[in-house]
Amino acid sequence: MRTLRVAMAQINPTVGDLKGNVSKIIDYIKKSKKASAHIVAFPELAVTGYPPEDLLLKNKFIEDNVNALKKIQMHAGDIIVIVGYVDKKDYIYNAAALLYKKRLIDTYHKIFLPNYGVFDEYRYFKPGSRSPVYRIGDTCIGVNICEDIWHPEGPILSQTRKGAEVIVNINASPYSIGKSRLREHMLSERASENAVILAYLNIVGGQDELVFDGHSLIINQEGSVIARGKQFEEDLLVVDLNLDGVKLKKPYTHGKRQVATKHPGKPAETIEIPVTKTFRKATVKQHVRLVPRDNQCMESLQEIYMALVLGTFDYVRKNGFRVVVIGLSGGADSSLVASIAVDALGVKNVVGLLMPSPYTSPESKEDVHALAKNLRIKITEVPINTIFESYLDSFKQPFKGMPSDVTEENLQARIRGNVLMAFSNKFGWLVLTTGNKSEMSVGYATLYGDMAGGFAVLKDVPKTMVYELINWKNSKTGRQVIPDRVIRKAPTAELRPGQKDTDTLPPYHILDPILRAYIEDDKCFKEIVSLGFNAKCVRNVISMVDRSEYKRRQSPPGIKITQRAFGRDRRFPITNKYKGY
Amino acid sequence: MRTLRVAMAQINPTVGDLKGNVSKIIDYIKKSKKASAHIVAFPELAVTGYPPEDLLLKNKFIEDNVNALKKIQMHAGDIIVIVGYVDKKDYIYNAAALLYKKRLIDTYHKIFLPNYGVFDEYRYFKPGSRSPVYRIGDTCIGVNICEDIWHPEGPILSQTRKGAEVIVNINASPYSIGKSRLREHMLSERASENAVILAYLNIVGGQDELVFDGHSLIINQEGSVIARGKQFEEDLLVVDLNLDGVKLKKPYTHGKRQVATKHPGKPAETIEIPVTKTFRKATVKQHVRLVPRDNQCMESLQEIYMALVLGTFDYVRKNGFRVVVIGLSGGADSSLVASIAVDALGVKNVVGLLMPSPYTSPESKEDVHALAKNLRIKITEVPINTIFESYLDSFKQPFKGMPSDVTEENLQARIRGNVLMAFSNKFGWLVLTTGNKSEMSVGYATLYGDMAGGFAVLKDVPKTMVYELINWKNSKTGRQVIPDRVIRKAPTAELRPGQKDTDTLPPYHILDPILRAYIEDDKCFKEIVSLGFNAKCVRNVISMVDRSEYKRRQSPPGIKITQRAFGRDRRFPITNKYKGY
Repeated sequence: MRTLRVAMAQINPTVGDLKGNVSKIIDYIKKSKKASAHIVAFPELAVTGYPPEDLLLKNKFIEDNVNALKKIQMHAGDIIVIVGYVDKKDYIYNAAALLYKKRLIDTYHKIFLPNYGVFDEYRYFKPGSRSPVYRIGDTCIGVNICEDIWHPEGPILSQTRKGAEVIVNINASPYSIGKSRLREHMLSERASENAVILAYLNIVGGQDELVFDGHSLIINQEGSVIARGKQFEEDLLVVDLNLDGVKLKKPYTHGKRQVATKHPGKPAETIEIPVTKTFRKATVKQHVRLVPRDNQCMESLQEIYMALVLGTFDYVRKNGFRVVVIGLSGGADSSLVASIAVDALGVKNVVGLLMPSPYTSPESKEDVHALAKNLRIKITEVPINTIFESYLDSFKQPFKGMPSDVTEENLQARIRGNVLMAFSNKFGWLVLTTGNKSEMSVGYATLYGDMAGGFAVLKDVPKTMVYELINWKNSKTGRQVIPDRVIRKAPTAELRPGQKDTDTLPPYHILDPILRAYIEDDKCFKEIVSLGFNAKCVRNVISMVDRSEYKRRQSPPGIKITQRAFGRDRRFPITNKYKGY
Repeated sequence: MRTLRVAMAQINPTVGDLKGNVSKIIDYIKKSKKASAHIVAFPELAVTGYPPEDLLLKNKFIEDNVNALKKIQMHAGDIIVIVGYVDKKDYIYNAAALLYKKRLIDTYHKIFLPNYGVFDEYRYFKPGSRSPVYRIGDTCIGVNICEDIWHPEGPILSQTRKGAEVIVNINASPYSIGKSRLREHMLSERASENAVILAYLNIVGGQDELVFDGHSLIINQEGSVIARGKQFEEDLLVVDLNLDGVKLKKPYTHGKRQVATKHPGKPAETIEIPVTKTFRKATVKQHVRLVPRDNQCMESLQEIYMALVLGTFDYVRKNGFRVVVIGLSGGADSSLVASIAVDALGVKNVVGLLMPSPYTSPESKEDVHALAKNLRIKITEVPINTIFESYLDSFKQPFKGMPSDVTEENLQARIRGNVLMAFSNKFGWLVLTTGNKSEMSVGYATLYGDMAGGFAVLKDVPKTMVYELINWKNSKTGRQVIPDRVIRKAPTAELRPGQKDTDTLPPYHILDPILRAYIEDDKCFKEIVSLGFNAKCVRNVISMVDRSEYKRRQSPPGIKITQRAFGRDRRFPITNKYKGY
């Protein structure tokens, strides 16, 4: 049986940490050699971390990244190393180096550059035009990058036609809900329609607004998953590929008709890799992990929760923080954030602040204490009454004769923001904000108040999903980590007596689907109404979303988990008189 | 003499205000008809405003824009109307419609799409591939869009080869320092090398971080400017073009050698516009403005000041505000912002807040009062002492035994931020922040403190330029609008006794060129040191810039005036371990 042992190094590099990334890559090359792998692959832009954004405009950064590759090259012995970096020729390219015996054998340039959603690759890179195959003894492989594999008529087509039996596709593909299933389906189709083994390697880790889920996949020529990398964790997936199965190659047809290759590249060329005699011999049986076909990925709520945990963990860690501080109100959002923070950072690294005002109910205080007890985190109480009074005194003259309004409500939120920031400044803690996507969408949040902080864990999590995640967490743990009353009671900001969210907003089970239709699906007013929602309510929601763009522009980054998050993913003008109704 | 009368409608549309933009366009068509113009041109994306950003992802918005064009079409009588809009076919295109006699004669699609700096055009548009010419009786014109004209081998080449005597190039080209001169130089070269009359039309107005300077130009076949639109104002430039001069066409050579057309388009086609017999007859002499060749554009400091005035005016106006409130410290930044605000909005619409602490010097208070008197604006005084004390009381327990540090300094700035926001909430005023680019670069600003507000007027203005602008303003006015002492005294945040900016930062005349080299010119540590700066100082500055990205991400928008502003223009990761030294 002809076999090829591939190692998929699903690593978590840090953007800009060339030195750290190189030593991690070298470390994984060593592990892969130990496992007798023939090939070890690293993710897209593993050398620089992904996305490096405007670091790519700095010549020195590009040079340093090329030098980093040279260091890696020195560690590529009798193993083929495929690693993502930035190649510099006349322009710069999103590239995959193929290294063997301390030599740079070839560099592949990504052909399809994504320039939508969070991606700006045309801002930096030129698209590639070659799709070579590499002959390794009696087998042949093709390499391509991320977006390339989504195109049926992309490089995979010319590579398999030229005889590739294995396609190594390296990625930096960020997580969003449902994407892992979509991806798996597409990859399975791509493998089977080309009758080729597809080794899909994804990066893992959090980077600002993005979290990469890992979850690398090896799919055989029939489209079945034969191995699966961990989700939201580093992993080294070592698998023996049976090349004999690929022999039965059928002509490639797409959607029943035979298609011509259309990708904007030159015809595939073949590059010989002069492997040593010993190269294909060593196959140690240990270290090989073959995952059965019926292996499943995590269920959806678990995926989301893990995405939030990893995103939070990496933001805190990679930015040099250790401890986070959270304003706890006794509500669902702050309770969930505390739970995520504890799972990400450990009990010792999470501090709660309770900042009651005269409008804070005894139940809220009880719930904060119950939560803190369940999570075993420390809480400090800083009442805001006297500070609030001192502001009101100062405003007596200038605001004379004017009724109390949203000004005084926002003021309380802003005092709390200041208190949190004072603790952050004094102790070097990072403030996690607790607002959810529903609030962020309609502007039901106070700028410099509850929006003040370094990282917004739930920024892309709608309120109804906050409840689902709490229920999932409680049922997973087998006890009420988050007190039941937190979920049962009516949501309130407690900024005036008897206040409820529904005074201002539609109930969340109505609000959230409207928001999703408008923000994620770009549906217009009429289309949303035709889904069965009240026209006045829809108009009101759309108007609130549009009017609060200025708040979102000043919000801290948070973790993208939906089809479209606020931040780099949704670039809306603040000054905008368009009303789509 | 064969002449063609063109009207250049240098208008200020508002993003998303399709109805308002259409009625403005129709209004200018009427004016142009009255002036007996043969052709009236409107800027790039005049129908939608520029840049519409992710509004372009909404189908309904694209449809509404197409319908808006149809309304305009109904007003195109015996005059050729060229207008920028979004064309929808299989994809969407950044397009110029050519309308005549209520018919859409043709649509040109922009070929070169900018995807750098503030531009994301590949995110939305497909590039065009046709560069037709339009035959109008005995003359022939070509139309193209913005970036197209920057490419010597772009559509202008095939259009002039196909016989175009006039090229109408419509733009939405944002202002930055020095760009008007660069643009003029390039346009002059492009006109003379193609021996063609070049009618360059630019949009005008502020849109979030951008300000468009208008300053349309008509350049004859010899490369001389024959007419110039106003800078930073709407204008209708009506000019008779002498087509006989163009007859003397010489073969196109670029850089001494003859070049082939290389733009990725099809060969130029000729489209006949069946003009009426009367079309080329009417030439009324009035309304025609011919500007002498030696006419100059504004001097640099005036341009910058006017850019800030228009940017502020349009942000306030287009977002539905009337009055702005500014925290006045007696320093240079807030004094300049007040002066700009008064010039933009009028004395009645500017309110100053003086918020003294125990560290506020008597001189600062005097300077605030002197400035307010000079500008004739109202000021309200809200001392922050008692509020500050009430915070300190609340922190006695949790911060016990810890020395006073940056926490207490930030706290004062944050109290001021809260006070400003309370006035904003109570009276519906927009807060203008006063921080400059030097501070914003190194993070010498308090998040939620002096950074709190809706619009950051000086966000892209380095401190040394703040002084230059003050001097320019004072000398222009012929009196000290901004008191002389404001410029002479050492800059201080007055957050602790005797504090000076130079305690933390290098002097601004050293800091600013380092920042420019690093941020605008992407120079690396070594290159900056080689310019003659102290290595330790450069390292320190670079490190401060990199570390404060998280603050900038939460800052309000401000007006881009340099080569590279913070915001959409510079997309840097927060999580970033790269140190280029």
